[in-house]
Amino acid sequence: MPILELLDYTGVAVFAATGALSASRKQLDIIGFLFLAAATGIGGGTFRDVILAAPVFWVVKPTYLIVCVVVALLVFVLAHRIESRYRLLLWLDAMGVSAYCVMGAAKGLAATGSPTVAITTGVLTASCGGIIRDLLAGEPSVLLRPEVYVTAALIGAAAFTAASAAGVPLWIASAIGIAAAFIVRGGALRFGWRFPVYRPRPGRHPDDVM
Amino acid sequence: MPILELLDYTGVAVFAATGALSASRKQLDIIGFLFLAAATGIGGGTFRDVILAAPVFWVVKPTYLIVCVVVALLVFVLAHRIESRYRLLLWLDAMGVSAYCVMGAAKGLAATGSPTVAITTGVLTASCGGIIRDLLAGEPSVLLRPEVYVTAALIGAAAFTAASAAGVPLWIASAIGIAAAFIVRGGALRFGWRFPVYRPRPGRHPDDVM
Amino acid sequence: MPILELLDYTGVAVFAATGALSASRKQLDIIGFLFLAAATGIGGGTFRDVILAAPVFWVVKPTYLIVCVVVALLVFVLAHRIESRYRLLLWLDAMGVSAYCVMGAAKGLAATGSPTVAITTGVLTASCGGIIRDLLAGEPSVLLRPEVYVTAALIGAAAFTAASAAGVPLWIASAIGIAAAFIVRGGALRFGWRFPVYRPRPGRHPDDVM
Repeated sequence: MPILELLDYTGVAVFAATGALSASRKQLDIIGFLFLAAATGIGGGTFRDVILAAPVFWVVKPTYLIVCVVVALLVFVLAHRIESRYRLLLWLDAMGVSAYCVMGAAKGLAATGSPTVAITTGVLTASCGGIIRDLLAGEPSVLLRPEVYVTAALIGAAAFTAASAAGVPLWIASAIGIAAAFIVRGGALRFGWRFPVYRPRPGRHPDDVM
Repeated sequence: MPILELLDYTGVAVFAATGALSASRKQLDIIGFLFLAAATGIGGGTFRDVILAAPVFWVVKPTYLIVCVVVALLVFVLAHRIESRYRLLLWLDAMGVSAYCVMGAAKGLAATGSPTVAITTGVLTASCGGIIRDLLAGEPSVLLRPEVYVTAALIGAAAFTAASAAGVPLWIASAIGIAAAFIVRGGALRFGWRFPVYRPRPGRHPDDVM
Repeated sequence: MPILELLDYTGVAVFAATGALSASRKQLDIIGFLFLAAATGIGGGTFRDVILAAPVFWVVKPTYLIVCVVVALLVFVLAHRIESRYRLLLWLDAMGVSAYCVMGAAKGLAATGSPTVAITTGVLTASCGGIIRDLLAGEPSVLLRPEVYVTAALIGAAAFTAASAAGVPLWIASAIGIAAAFIVRGGALRFGWRFPVYRPRPGRHPDDVM
C-alpha cells in the first residue's frame, strides 16, 4: 500500500517538525528536540496500532525513527531563521492532521470494517500526536483553543470513510479525505473559521463550587 | 455476561457525560464535547483492555462510541439548565467509578486469576477516564484534591474481588463492589469524608531546592 | 534472565519511591501515595511491553505491585525525616533511569533485533515513569528542566546496545549501560552538567502569535 505508507511518512515527518519547533520555543537542548520530535511524530500512530492490536509501525520499520531524528536535527539548525515558529508549527500540524486522519481511518477500516471505528481511529491518530506534544511541552492544548482542530480530523476521516464505502479507489478516497481535512483546518488558520461554542457561562474553579 | 456489559455501558455513559460537562465548563464547540466525552467515556476501559492484551471493547462493539456521541449531544443541549455542572459531574463520576472499578476488577480477575492484578485493573479502569478528562481540559486533577477518589475505586475493587474469591455469584459480588465504592465516594462528596493526609510540609518549587 | 529481572525490580522500586515522594510533596493521603508510587513504578515498563506486544510484566508477575505498595508505605512513614525530598527524588530517579534504560533496550533488542528500536524503547521505558509522575502530580516536567535527563537514558541505552552488538555478555553490557547513564545523570545533578540549549528566543504565548 504505497499511498498509505507515503501518508504515514508525511504524518511522521511533519508532526516531528512540530514537536521540534515546540522544543525550540521552550529552548530545550538537542536531546529535548529529538524526544519531542519522536513523541509527536510517532505518538498518534503508536496509539492507533496498540488499540487495533496491530504491530506498532515503527517497531516493524525503524526507518520512521530515523525520519524523526533527521527532522529534529534540521529544525535545531534552521529554526532561528523562521519568523514565526508557532505559525509554521500550526501549518505543519494541519498537514499532519490531514495525512493522519486518513491513514488512521484506513487502518481502522481495514482492521474492523466498521465506519464508526474507522472515523474514531482517524480522529485519534490525527489528534494524539499534537495532544502529547502540548502536554509534554506545557503549552495550552490545541484542543482548548477555539479552532476547528479535531473537527478537521473528523471531517477528513468521515470523508475518506464515506468515499471508501461508496467504492471509490483507495488513492482517490485518500485524496478526498486529505483535501477535506486540510481545507477545514487551513480555513480555520487563514480565515478564523470556527464553530459556535457553548457559551452560557464558563466553569467556576472547583474550590468555589464545593 | 449481561451484568458486566450493563456495567460497561453505565460506566461509558456516565463518564462520557462528565467529559461533556467538562467541555461545557471550558466553553468548547460541539466537536470538543464529542471528543472529551469519548476520551473520558472509553479511556479507562481502553487502557484496561490494552494492558490485559484483550481486544479493545469499543473496537469490537462500536455501539459504545454511539453512546458517547448521544450523551455528548444531550449534554450540549441541556447543560445550561443545570445549576452546578461541576457537582453533577462529580456525582456522575462517582457512579462511573463504582461501575468501572468492579468491571475492571472482573476483567482482570477473569484474565489472570490474581486478586492483586484484579484490584489494580479495577482502580486503573475507574480512575483513568477521569484523569484523562482533567488532563485534556486543564482542570486540577481529581487525584490531587483531598477526596477519597482513588480510595473508593480501591475499596470497590477489593470488595468485589474478595466476594468473588469467597465464591459469591458474579452479580451479587458486583452489587457489593458497586455499593462499597459508591458509599465511600458518595460519603466523601456529601459529608466531606477524607483520609488523614500527609501533612509535615508541602514541597518547595524545584528551583528553590536545587 | 536474573540480571534483567533484578534491573526490573530495582527500576520499579526506585521509581515507586520517587512517586511516593512526589505524593508527600503534594500532601496526598495514603492512597494517593500508593497510586502515584504504582503509576510511576510500573508506568514505563507497561508502556514498553504494550509497544513490543509483550505480556505486561506486572500482569504476569504481580509481585511488582507488592513492591510498589511496600515502598509507598515506607515513604509515607519515613518521608518527614528527610531533609530534601526533592533531591532524594532526583537521585532515586537517576538510579531508576539507569536501570530502566538498559532493561528497556534489552527487551527491545531481544524482541526486534534492531538497535534503533532498542535505543528507543530504552529511552521510552526510562523516561515514561517520570513523565507520568510529573503530569499526575502537576509538577513542571523533568523534561523541560535544563538537565541531561533524557540524554542520560539515551546514552545508557546506546552504550548497552553497542556493547551487546559487539558481543559483550549480557551482564557486562548491562553494567556498562547502567554506569554510563548514571555517570551522565549523576554528573548533571552533582556538577550541573548540561547541553547547550537552543537559545535564540523563547516562544511567545499562542495568543500573541495568532
